[in-house]
Amino acid sequence: MENFNINEIAGGVCAAKGFKANGLHCGLYPDKNKNDLGMVASDVVCNVAAVYTTNKVKGAPILVTKRHLENSNYQAQAVIVNSKNANTCNADGEQKAEAVCKLAADELGIDVDLIIPASTGVIGQVLPLEPFEQNIKQLVCGLGYDNNEEAAKAIMTTDTIKKEAAVSFVIGGKECHLGGMAKGSGMIHPNMATTLNFITTDVSISTCLLKKALDEIVKVTYNCLSIDGDTSTNDMVSVMANGMAGNIEITVENEEYNIFKAALYNVMERMTKMLAKDGEGATKLLECSVSGAPNLDSAIIVAKSVIRSPLLKCAMFGEDANWGRILCAIGYAEADFDINKVDVSLKSASGIIEVCKNGSGVDFSEELAAEILHKDEINININLNQGNASAKAWGCDLTYEYVKINGDYRS
Amino acid sequence: MENFNINEIAGGVCAAKGFKANGLHCGLYPDKNKNDLGMVASDVVCNVAAVYTTNKVKGAPILVTKRHLENSNYQAQAVIVNSKNANTCNADGEQKAEAVCKLAADELGIDVDLIIPASTGVIGQVLPLEPFEQNIKQLVCGLGYDNNEEAAKAIMTTDTIKKEAAVSFVIGGKECHLGGMAKGSGMIHPNMATTLNFITTDVSISTCLLKKALDEIVKVTYNCLSIDGDTSTNDMVSVMANGMAGNIEITVENEEYNIFKAALYNVMERMTKMLAKDGEGATKLLECSVSGAPNLDSAIIVAKSVIRSPLLKCAMFGEDANWGRILCAIGYAEADFDINKVDVSLKSASGIIEVCKNGSGVDFSEELAAEILHKDEINININLNQGNASAKAWGCDLTYEYVKINGDYRS
Repeated sequence: MENFNINEIAGGVCAAKGFKANGLHCGLYPDKNKNDLGMVASDVVCNVAAVYTTNKVKGAPILVTKRHLENSNYQAQAVIVNSKNANTCNADGEQKAEAVCKLAADELGIDVDLIIPASTGVIGQVLPLEPFEQNIKQLVCGLGYDNNEEAAKAIMTTDTIKKEAAVSFVIGGKECHLGGMAKGSGMIHPNMATTLNFITTDVSISTCLLKKALDEIVKVTYNCLSIDGDTSTNDMVSVMANGMAGNIEITVENEEYNIFKAALYNVMERMTKMLAKDGEGATKLLECSVSGAPNLDSAIIVAKSVIRSPLLKCAMFGEDANWGRILCAIGYAEADFDINKVDVSLKSASGIIEVCKNGSGVDFSEELAAEILHKDEINININLNQGNASAKAWGCDLTYEYVKINGDYRS
Repeated sequence: MENFNINEIAGGVCAAKGFKANGLHCGLYPDKNKNDLGMVASDVVCNVAAVYTTNKVKGAPILVTKRHLENSNYQAQAVIVNSKNANTCNADGEQKAEAVCKLAADELGIDVDLIIPASTGVIGQVLPLEPFEQNIKQLVCGLGYDNNEEAAKAIMTTDTIKKEAAVSFVIGGKECHLGGMAKGSGMIHPNMATTLNFITTDVSISTCLLKKALDEIVKVTYNCLSIDGDTSTNDMVSVMANGMAGNIEITVENEEYNIFKAALYNVMERMTKMLAKDGEGATKLLECSVSGAPNLDSAIIVAKSVIRSPLLKCAMFGEDANWGRILCAIGYAEADFDINKVDVSLKSASGIIEVCKNGSGVDFSEELAAEILHKDEINININLNQGNASAKAWGCDLTYEYVKINGDYRS
């Protein structure tokens, strides 16, 4: 990414002009303090781009979102999203998702095809409509231009922190904004899509370029994230652009398009790291940086292979510099390169240490390695030494807590 | 597999005529009671077939074994194997592995190319030669026709039980035997190869058909095993056939070849299940049976995808009938089929229960499901309902103990 003047700001999905949000407890979770229904709505109709999970099992809301966006020629005005119940593998799933959209559309006074529905939670449990019927009025009434946190809380499941990011930047002399919220924190191994993410912007940009920018940035951010290797059935990112910043619409890949992409990258990379750091049971954020690769795809494949390895993830939890497991995971990555040229080092706020040179071990101080691995953000730097491409992937350690959380998730 | 008269017997690698074995503590492990050096030797030269890991990082012993078998035209007479140190990612690895072979060959009085070396343990630690030099005489002197257990113990690392299996069967009126030993129990996700396995037989069979049988059986046994998704650097199976049963050499794919394959399948399937059941930290053996698949490869891909899912593995540990995770893992399997035809049931010694029909959930008794999942061997039965091919895959649950073992494996 080129270096543009991108300022990190607060506000999440409400950072962009004309976007309101809300979240509340509708009754899907037993805990009355837990928001489980959220909405994001724009004052005006937006251009939209979205990417979806590649899992053959697709949540009903994914199918309905796809249909709505096709019907509306990629326009939308609001997102309605619930947690606790994924509305997936239910015979009446699509019917229920459509009914939820209808409730939202009627209350907002807009066409049903302008609604993007989403659900996250347990697969295969019938979605009750009553909680939506009883709370839709309150949800819409409470929409506010600074209510982003309530919406961000509504999409959390096993997440321990809400995940929001936003930036401001200038395009054609106009101040623009882009922000988002994301949901973790297990069943995360995005493939051509990602976990649940909603992004809003007031930039004016054509649907075609919005989609192009999203595809490019997803590839090097959310798709380079793996918590556990399980690709979810309900993954989706949507970007809604309402044009209220007042810039002249971006319709070609010019400097302004690049600024927009840099803003999108900033927000999506930060949310990717938040997702990794808050992976189920995680105590450490792992970042694997691959350089010297023959091409971008090889760099991504190697970085993801390392980040996904359960053995490496356990070693990081144990703060054990067992670099052989890094080499092992590089070795089974399905990319074409010479393993005998590979260098590996470990880095954190405590320093950097080389552990492997030309595919073989080198002497290193176990003491320094232990200090480095004791930090809660660890970089695994891999230089393939056979090209100029580079990529990063993000993940977390594998801990007792992950097993505990997932041993009894439904209850 | 056709049903032939295959009798399960004791004896492991010594079940076949003319095979001796031994194992002892040479000093690689600190615990003096832990065998860490083993040998299997035939009275006469054997035909050999082998398959190896597809990891780009290959242990030095793998490279040396390949070279030896090419030099000897796929003949061998002995295996020497150590645990604790994988002799992988060491600049002097091949040189050391050759030196170990030389010690064994000299002591046995045979050509060095007839030795198959193997190592398992930590990657990237220099292999000391002294333990081998000081113990080779005792190792060879102690070789015995019923010493298989000492060898089976010598290849254990985090294994909690030794893994042996053997059978007898009749070919051309001659009583024949085939047996083996295997090593677990982490970094197991064989890919066109398997974890460390040594098989011996007194059947007379051509090298060509021995390799063909091994490739076919590996595909549906060891290659359908996943403990953690990490494909090891030192995976290998070798089969040594010394012909001492006295049958006329099998050189065509006749009935006798099929009997041999059935014997090989019996031993390899049993060892596969032993490996799964003793996976690092495992409390349950998981078997996923896929039927109704359009072809064998699709059946294998779906079965392995389910067995590998960390979320499903955690749910099985928690005895939680969270079948949505099974559907999710079926859905991201890279095979071509219609998810809306899929049925899933859970089975154990306590009974069987259908949880999903035509890709959607069905009502089921959570009580019965809990009883079924409380057993230590669980079958996940999947019918794709779109063909006649079937396959099985094996794995285990994901537990606190797995995390503990792998948080600090090197020490």
